[in-house]
Amino acid sequence: MTHEDAIRLFAKTLRNLEHWMDKAAEYAKAKSFEVDVLAQSRLAPDQYPFVRQVQAACDQAKYAAAYLGGKPAPSHPDTEQTFAELRARVEKCLAFIESVSAKDFSGAEERKVAPPWLGGKWLRGDDYLLHVAIPNFFFHATTAYAILRHNGVQLGKMDYIGSFPTQEG
Amino acid sequence: MTHEDAIRLFAKTLRNLEHWMDKAAEYAKAKSFEVDVLAQSRLAPDQYPFVRQVQAACDQAKYAAAYLGGKPAPSHPDTEQTFAELRARVEKCLAFIESVSAKDFSGAEERKVAPPWLGGKWLRGDDYLLHVAIPNFFFHATTAYAILRHNGVQLGKMDYIGSFPTQEG
Repeated sequence: MTHEDAIRLFAKTLRNLEHWMDKAAEYAKAKSFEVDVLAQSRLAPDQYPFVRQVQAACDQAKYAAAYLGGKPAPSHPDTEQTFAELRARVEKCLAFIESVSAKDFSGAEERKVAPPWLGGKWLRGDDYLLHVAIPNFFFHATTAYAILRHNGVQLGKMDYIGSFPTQEG
Repeated sequence: MTHEDAIRLFAKTLRNLEHWMDKAAEYAKAKSFEVDVLAQSRLAPDQYPFVRQVQAACDQAKYAAAYLGGKPAPSHPDTEQTFAELRARVEKCLAFIESVSAKDFSGAEERKVAPPWLGGKWLRGDDYLLHVAIPNFFFHATTAYAILRHNGVQLGKMDYIGSFPTQEG
């Protein structure tokens, strides 16, 4: 499994998340409430609401693509409040991570990743992907899904996973 | 990132989950309730409770190690009801996945993975890891965490992530 594979998986999951937001919008319409109420919903009073979970999932994908691909990360300020704005954020994130090519990820395993929050320490590219990017990305994506699910949106595991490349014969 | 790396990440996260259960037990004691109440807690009436999320996380790790390592998966029936039983389940799972060696994972990328639920179709080993094992494992681990968090257990992101191998200099 290459670093590019992991970034493509993040992209696929962000597209699945757009589909969860579609289902949330349908549910809001059927129940006659404003879908943006869900943007501020959360599972615990001291945990991030939906809007912040989506922003964080985007950032995990963006920084993984940037650090592992050796590209500067574009700035995406956390200003979104509505589902429409969150969709635009996801699209901006996808445009960036899909601009990082297979060639950019060459040598990512051993690349020195030193995000500011490590305070001068660093991680090997492989360790950053494994110990930071993958668990954090799926943490925020799953929590976003769980917030919608907790509020009654009709989602099932296949909405979470999306399609996968089965083979026959 | 190798297939073995991914299985080791699942093992690390299952050990983190044991730590979340420790914190849940402390919280239950402080609030004078029976911790096993949390085993049946869930985020939505038609979503799995904590006990089933833990069993599913274990199974995702177990089947990934078995399919990708070319080993038969041991049977672990879903009979657990209590935190004590869930800890034993996690330990059984860890003992199995840690018995699969780096050598066993050699060639896992191209191994044909045909779980019964694919009804005769199959996935390349790399695709199974990427599209099934990783997202599903973290789905169930994160949902287990979220159920505890929703019920007031004092958990933070570092409990979720655990340790990681930073470098200096």
